[in-house]
Amino acid sequence: MTVKKIAVLIGSLRKQSFNRKMALAVSALAPAALQLEIVEIGDLPLYNEELDADGAPPAAWTAFRQTMQDRDGVLFCTAEYNRSVPAVLKNALDVGSRPYGASIWNGKPGAIISVSPGALGGFGANHHLRQSLMSLNVPCMQQPEAYIGGAGALFAPDGSLSNDATRQFMQKFINAFATWVEHNG
Amino acid sequence: MTVKKIAVLIGSLRKQSFNRKMALAVSALAPAALQLEIVEIGDLPLYNEELDADGAPPAAWTAFRQTMQDRDGVLFCTAEYNRSVPAVLKNALDVGSRPYGASIWNGKPGAIISVSPGALGGFGANHHLRQSLMSLNVPCMQQPEAYIGGAGALFAPDGSLSNDATRQFMQKFINAFATWVEHNG
Amino acid sequence: MTVKKIAVLIGSLRKQSFNRKMALAVSALAPAALQLEIVEIGDLPLYNEELDADGAPPAAWTAFRQTMQDRDGVLFCTAEYNRSVPAVLKNALDVGSRPYGASIWNGKPGAIISVSPGALGGFGANHHLRQSLMSLNVPCMQQPEAYIGGAGALFAPDGSLSNDATRQFMQKFINAFATWVEHNG
Amino acid sequence: MTVKKIAVLIGSLRKQSFNRKMALAVSALAPAALQLEIVEIGDLPLYNEELDADGAPPAAWTAFRQTMQDRDGVLFCTAEYNRSVPAVLKNALDVGSRPYGASIWNGKPGAIISVSPGALGGFGANHHLRQSLMSLNVPCMQQPEAYIGGAGALFAPDGSLSNDATRQFMQKFINAFATWVEHNG
Repeated sequence: MTVKKIAVLIGSLRKQSFNRKMALAVSALAPAALQLEIVEIGDLPLYNEELDADGAPPAAWTAFRQTMQDRDGVLFCTAEYNRSVPAVLKNALDVGSRPYGASIWNGKPGAIISVSPGALGGFGANHHLRQSLMSLNVPCMQQPEAYIGGAGALFAPDGSLSNDATRQFMQKFINAFATWVEHNG
Repeated sequence: MTVKKIAVLIGSLRKQSFNRKMALAVSALAPAALQLEIVEIGDLPLYNEELDADGAPPAAWTAFRQTMQDRDGVLFCTAEYNRSVPAVLKNALDVGSRPYGASIWNGKPGAIISVSPGALGGFGANHHLRQSLMSLNVPCMQQPEAYIGGAGALFAPDGSLSNDATRQFMQKFINAFATWVEHNG
Repeated sequence: MTVKKIAVLIGSLRKQSFNRKMALAVSALAPAALQLEIVEIGDLPLYNEELDADGAPPAAWTAFRQTMQDRDGVLFCTAEYNRSVPAVLKNALDVGSRPYGASIWNGKPGAIISVSPGALGGFGANHHLRQSLMSLNVPCMQQPEAYIGGAGALFAPDGSLSNDATRQFMQKFINAFATWVEHNG
Repeated sequence: MTVKKIAVLIGSLRKQSFNRKMALAVSALAPAALQLEIVEIGDLPLYNEELDADGAPPAAWTAFRQTMQDRDGVLFCTAEYNRSVPAVLKNALDVGSRPYGASIWNGKPGAIISVSPGALGGFGANHHLRQSLMSLNVPCMQQPEAYIGGAGALFAPDGSLSNDATRQFMQKFINAFATWVEHNG
């Protein structure tokens, strides 16, 4: 068995973000075939094509691109801001997609978890993200879909998933993702 | 007649951006009832709720929010990145929407122009932006829709719209927006 | 005060549809300025442009178009099928939009309620419908948004809204719609 | 080599539909590994769950479901009506997805071509369709994307693709789909 290295990208910059908690909780549930690790995206300057054209892109862009090149797949845990993807995550997509022809996303299997305190579970962010991933040629796991609402009541103080149904669902989700990465990697 | 002050936000950071050119060209076409002026959004730090919670948000956020409070409407000229809204513009939406209860968008009439070098005219960005504006309670002009493709052949060296059909369409668009702002302001 | 006649279109053909129940419940809550009445759409043949081109469209199309011409606004109560608008409702949009130049939707104020038994409240259908309404030039109320989940527990045997919070929210919603119709009619 | 049987579904009922022309043209270009055949969907009654619940669904539904069960994949050629999927195609999705647990879509590899006379190439229909296919667990080919605009100038009187660039693109597209079906079938 080859262990697959999976980048986990978090669509929220809050330290106490429910999505960061979910990223850690689901990483702990992952089967041995997957090694999940958060890749931080909060320090990436906003994408501007001219910085690449000058041949001297920001160091943070270069570091992010190099890190991602070395990953076998990507798991997104994202909040929803204003019914769409938070800018911090959209920026990581944009930075990683360039320069033209050197996208780090191309062919890399992915999956999405959207987490929100409200009932809707980030549906709007989840699907806007899917539209971008389609164009980036990320084979994005279809089922199960993970819209996790009511996030305020799901986690124990130690960050684990205290809600049994959610923990069992996320176990099923991450197992399915392992199969997905194996098939599409 | 009261002149309405309209903020123009550009979804691209390139200096030579087609959307910046469009922003300037359409501003020149605007009827006297509208005064259009670009509000820059490239220096806004990525939105992070914790910075607001601390009571000391970044100065660039505060300046942007204050500027926008003084505007009667907003015109978006946006590129499409990866079939969605560029991060720089999504970030301006997110920054302007907070803190909770103090959104600068609420009730402010808006319109969208999406411009791209390809044929599709930024349809994906245009509609993802509309979904966010719905939740932000921006009455967003429905017709005419402005998906401007083939942008490389539309502008004269002085930045004006050299393509007659496009110039006439944009004239019609900005006139309709004046009516829209008057009705929804 | 002029009473506005509002067509209520239901995106579901089930007799026991939660959306039909909602349509009736919200009609009962409507202020005197609005007169809501369901317009049935289940018998409309699937849209085919050739039937209009022949000059002899199906009688059900003609009747629907005539009925809608006489309405001042439209309220949609829709289920979500496969993360989008049920065909029955999309068909009504398509039939009503034609022949070219004779759309019954143009300029007619509208609002959307999406109801589902699950938690997500029909978010996917709600927003796909909004995209169509934008192109049909229906000024569609933005706030409040009505994603009504958990529909199985909301209604009394007599069809009224037994859930207090939902009833209060729907009262607020339909009052806001009366204002919306007044302003955009 | 096993030949894969691919159902072609057309999102338009016009006999002279550009999408029907495209369906036939691309079928002629398909490699030997794929056998494409149009499955007609114009006679399916609008989906109504109660007809299934009664245990006596319309004969047209049953015939469609049986036909599709025997197919290895599905190619969608769709028009755009009012910035979304034509009702005739959405209805086929809905009919095929039920009864619960007996969906004919589950796991069946798919691809989308959207064709329109205008410049935008059916982008809105293409992506609304993708959202439904995600929920239906259809692995939907991501690249290349096929938004075919200006359809009035693409076909020869015999129905073949007279535009060289479009024919070459569609050849590349259908070859990629053969690989996609092989991998995801």
